[in-house]
Amino acid sequence: MGDYVEMPLRDGDFILIEYTVRVKETGNIVDTTSEEIARKEEIYDSNRIYGPQLVIVGRGWVIKGLDEALKEIDPGVEKEIEIPPEKAYGTRDPGKIKVFSIREFRRRGIDVRIGDVIEYGGETGIVKSIGGGRVVIDFNHPLAGKTLVYKVRVVRKLEDPVEKAKALTARHLGLKMENVDLEYRAEEKALYIRIPTRIMTRKDIQYAKIALVSNIYEYLRDYVKKVVFQEIFERKEEKEEAKEETGKVEEGEKQAEEQSTRAEEDVSQ
Amino acid sequence: MGDYVEMPLRDGDFILIEYTVRVKETGNIVDTTSEEIARKEEIYDSNRIYGPQLVIVGRGWVIKGLDEALKEIDPGVEKEIEIPPEKAYGTRDPGKIKVFSIREFRRRGIDVRIGDVIEYGGETGIVKSIGGGRVVIDFNHPLAGKTLVYKVRVVRKLEDPVEKAKALTARHLGLKMENVDLEYRAEEKALYIRIPTRIMTRKDIQYAKIALVSNIYEYLRDYVKKVVFQEIFERKEEKEEAKEETGKVEEGEKQAEEQSTRAEEDVSQ
Repeated sequence: MGDYVEMPLRDGDFILIEYTVRVKETGNIVDTTSEEIARKEEIYDSNRIYGPQLVIVGRGWVIKGLDEALKEIDPGVEKEIEIPPEKAYGTRDPGKIKVFSIREFRRRGIDVRIGDVIEYGGETGIVKSIGGGRVVIDFNHPLAGKTLVYKVRVVRKLEDPVEKAKALTARHLGLKMENVDLEYRAEEKALYIRIPTRIMTRKDIQYAKIALVSNIYEYLRDYVKKVVFQEIFERKEEKEEAKEETGKVEEGEKQAEEQSTRAEEDVSQ
Repeated sequence: MGDYVEMPLRDGDFILIEYTVRVKETGNIVDTTSEEIARKEEIYDSNRIYGPQLVIVGRGWVIKGLDEALKEIDPGVEKEIEIPPEKAYGTRDPGKIKVFSIREFRRRGIDVRIGDVIEYGGETGIVKSIGGGRVVIDFNHPLAGKTLVYKVRVVRKLEDPVEKAKALTARHLGLKMENVDLEYRAEEKALYIRIPTRIMTRKDIQYAKIALVSNIYEYLRDYVKKVVFQEIFERKEEKEEAKEETGKVEEGEKQAEEQSTRAEEDVSQ
């Protein structure tokens, strides 16, 4: 299909990107896909998956200024992009700075301090000052009014629908791509996605599955008409019995599983 | 195996029972498996599944007095059983009646009224009286100290392991037995249980699955070494396209599904 690396990216393309963002005026790094940089900058979040991140171009998966810039970037090349507030988190709205009586908080037994994050009426704000019986809370996004500088690199573009499904699964379920256990059965246009038991009870996992299905049907509609999530419990005693016999059965199983997943992918391409 | 209806029930037997319980002194009906009686007595709970209920004999699935009595009951015959507090919800403990200062509640912005259910230190209590700046809360079980009268009937004993698995699934997932979609694959000793999407986001559904697996491995260990939960999403457009052709495809599908489940059961017996 004449699919050269040099072709510009288009709306709907699946790409993996790496980026690091800083606030232009302060130089503070506020977000990054690099675990190393996150640790160095002390913004490391253990709940987050670091490494290249899936973006579907032109679909609002990233802020507007970056989404537009992606279409001008050559894959593989790191680029620096400056994004004004209008195309990032918006300008600051003085109307979103609200003043409350400190008595209101005391009555509810809430002990407010400067810097506290407060939820109120569905919005999140930060306590900016306390004094004279008043609490000033700013409900603007913390990055509103800021010009952001992205260092961004498009690692590669995904073409294979099964790889796209894997990337969507990784993103929605909060897994590393290599830990996604997914089988595509072309003859029934079905995706079988195994949910690791360790993430089964994660908060909102059921909603994450539903959102994933919705994305799959939106972006892979020619390939998928059925999605099956599987949660598999194998009785522990069996494994332990087997382990006594063979020694390192679990490692072996894991490898076998990885191989079979890979084999299935090959078949489905 | 000489499995006559007249044989007494034993510990570990799977049975379906129907019952209605009243408090001896007042005659108030406090629980029933009959939807009709629940509605008449105005204790109907729309979240509950009415009809025969699974009990595993001697495993504490019901109060002690009933659990013991089940072993003396002939299946099919309705029996009335009187159970003293010691074998029901315990005697009343005056130490569980606690007095709080009303100021404590006001400070937390809680407006207490007589009859309110209060959670405190992991226990649930009922506000019994308010006056003189004091709130008296009774943390005894509401049925503590009560003699209960059960009208109970053992509908039948389950023998088929697949039917037992179905009954366990119905109970843990809060489904009617006829709505359980379960397939037993004898050659791999595996149970495939389909989770209807309408209950996917029910609170604690993931924990219910884990509890179900634990019960299956405890009671059906000779038959099951693997449990697979499946959540299946079929793309709606496909169904709608089909519907235009065949008219009433959904009803047809439902029936087909029921038949195939039944067929699978027959095979596995």
